Amino acid sequence: MWTKAALLTLFLASTASAFVNSKLSVKPFLSPAFSAVKDDEVIIAEDIEEKDKAFDLVGYFKSNLPALEKAMLAATKSDIPQTDNICKSMEYSLMAGGKRLRPMLCIAACEMFGGSLGDAVPTAIALEMIHTMSLIHDDLPMMDDDDLRRGKPTNHVVFGEQVAILAGDAMLAGSFEVVAKNTPKSVPAKRVIQVITILGKTMGPVGLAGGQAMDLECEGKEGVSVEDLTWIHTHKTAALLEASICAGATLGGATEDEVETLRKFAIDIGLAFQIADDILDITATTEELGKTAAKDLEADKATYPKLLGLEESKIEAQRLIDEAKTLMKPFGDRAIPLLAMADFIVNRKN
Amino acid sequence: MWTKAALLTLFLASTASAFVNSKLSVKPFLSPAFSAVKDDEVIIAEDIEEKDKAFDLVGYFKSNLPALEKAMLAATKSDIPQTDNICKSMEYSLMAGGKRLRPMLCIAACEMFGGSLGDAVPTAIALEMIHTMSLIHDDLPMMDDDDLRRGKPTNHVVFGEQVAILAGDAMLAGSFEVVAKNTPKSVPAKRVIQVITILGKTMGPVGLAGGQAMDLECEGKEGVSVEDLTWIHTHKTAALLEASICAGATLGGATEDEVETLRKFAIDIGLAFQIADDILDITATTEELGKTAAKDLEADKATYPKLLGLEESKIEAQRLIDEAKTLMKPFGDRAIPLLAMADFIVNRKN
Repeated sequence: MWTKAALLTLFLASTASAFVNSKLSVKPFLSPAFSAVKDDEVIIAEDIEEKDKAFDLVGYFKSNLPALEKAMLAATKSDIPQTDNICKSMEYSLMAGGKRLRPMLCIAACEMFGGSLGDAVPTAIALEMIHTMSLIHDDLPMMDDDDLRRGKPTNHVVFGEQVAILAGDAMLAGSFEVVAKNTPKSVPAKRVIQVITILGKTMGPVGLAGGQAMDLECEGKEGVSVEDLTWIHTHKTAALLEASICAGATLGGATEDEVETLRKFAIDIGLAFQIADDILDITATTEELGKTAAKDLEADKATYPKLLGLEESKIEAQRLIDEAKTLMKPFGDRAIPLLAMADFIVNRKN
Repeated sequence: MWTKAALLTLFLASTASAFVNSKLSVKPFLSPAFSAVKDDEVIIAEDIEEKDKAFDLVGYFKSNLPALEKAMLAATKSDIPQTDNICKSMEYSLMAGGKRLRPMLCIAACEMFGGSLGDAVPTAIALEMIHTMSLIHDDLPMMDDDDLRRGKPTNHVVFGEQVAILAGDAMLAGSFEVVAKNTPKSVPAKRVIQVITILGKTMGPVGLAGGQAMDLECEGKEGVSVEDLTWIHTHKTAALLEASICAGATLGGATEDEVETLRKFAIDIGLAFQIADDILDITATTEELGKTAAKDLEADKATYPKLLGLEESKIEAQRLIDEAKTLMKPFGDRAIPLLAMADFIVNRKN
């Protein structure tokens, strides 16, 4: 049986122009490795499995991708020859593939409350721009010192450190410009301002930058606790997934209470996402990941498998996903795309 | 006679808590070095001198500074102990003094069209945050490799390169958050969105990041033309002064045509500002500048004095200021604070 995760991996590894042509019939699954959950959680999961069964996640990704790729490419272009180098550097990293999970979460959350794909696209690509610029800066020699990302040499390897830093800066600023400039006028201006507040916070001290700083601080340090690690993961990774979902919901017109429920869902799946990343770092190959495997181990980083063990980490990831799904029950069928993405997060292979 | 520039230098070198107590009587002046302008421009300049005479620029800076400093300090704070290091790094550079010229330009442009200080403050500090983060990243060893800024060791010297990069990223994102979150609700949301578009563009490829990339590319290169240099200066320096003035005018309710006139004024004074910087690099001491003197010379950078000679550069700076002032005639007395700042730009000593 082809699993949803395997199909998605296959699909996402292909370029935008090389889509699978036939509509894929996707059957969700729970990996046996993730079966050790409490009884009531199994019941909830089964209930959601049932609803989820008909949902074609690959098709959903496939249908949204062209609009995203087109808008992302446009965001890296300028007509001015003097900017060639920095624009090429931005394009290189932004168009290097990747799961586009954050944009998809944003679109799904926006549509969940009645917004359209077009309403969400500028914010969705802004999230991918923020994600990508954080990777460019994290990969720098004086940071995580990584040579490989999304199966290609990292930005600074190709364009040099100077351009890599500046391209990251330009992409971060550009992400806000895109939201402010390109969000359809039909979306109330106040919502756009709320979205910009969300995006601004997510890269700050209580977001990606703070999480990465604390992560580097803890590298090779004795006595890093699960609480420390959860703080790092919540801010380094979950913060941007949280921003994706909350911004999408805001654009779609969710109430404050609804956004708060989605925030809890997002933090759960964001933490699960990072635990899955930690697990993949030691169980997957460099080829499968498209980035250097066993990197955390080598850098002596605190990870969930290191602190809890591999099996306990898998259990914790699934517990978080189940908790997240429970939170979404009040939204009924409208939440199905987000639930399918939650499944994908723990079952993915890269 | 104490010149306005000398008084401002004295004033700005002091900390926010050590203000000069007496109200200073400021008499504008034209440096003899800048006297070689055309006849009609002299007349315009004299006319403006007359109007300008009563304006107390030092007092203007002094009255706006406390609101700015308070808001800037708040923008670097978080209650979360894990963010201590990155917040301290942000505070270190943002609160290190500096001329605060960009915020003052923004406030003056906002007030010129009927906006209040409070309307402008979030955008004004966002501009200073963008300026400061660009300095933190520019000073990095793999960029301009500078150890001294605003009379203090540079950010990476104190906090390390990792934190310096992340603090810069956090400050850039935070600048947008501040505008979106803290601009008074009385300012129409559409204006706030326009301001964010302006700020987003200013750090992009056709802004600071592109200007710095091109500047580094031209370092030590033969055959850099005045046109190349003007492109670099327009984008590396003038772009943010342009954003300061256009954003301020937008917040205050200027029409599109008015914003376009102010844009031309801003580009002129922005170019003059950078030419003055080039001149100061070779004529002022490290102590006067608060940053390493003769740095451009040492790095074999293309500068106006290098390409045009020192005297021609001074003439060009003053020509730009006079051209800028002419553009502002239709606004009459409302433009006086901006005109006084234009004078300050070429007459400053650091």
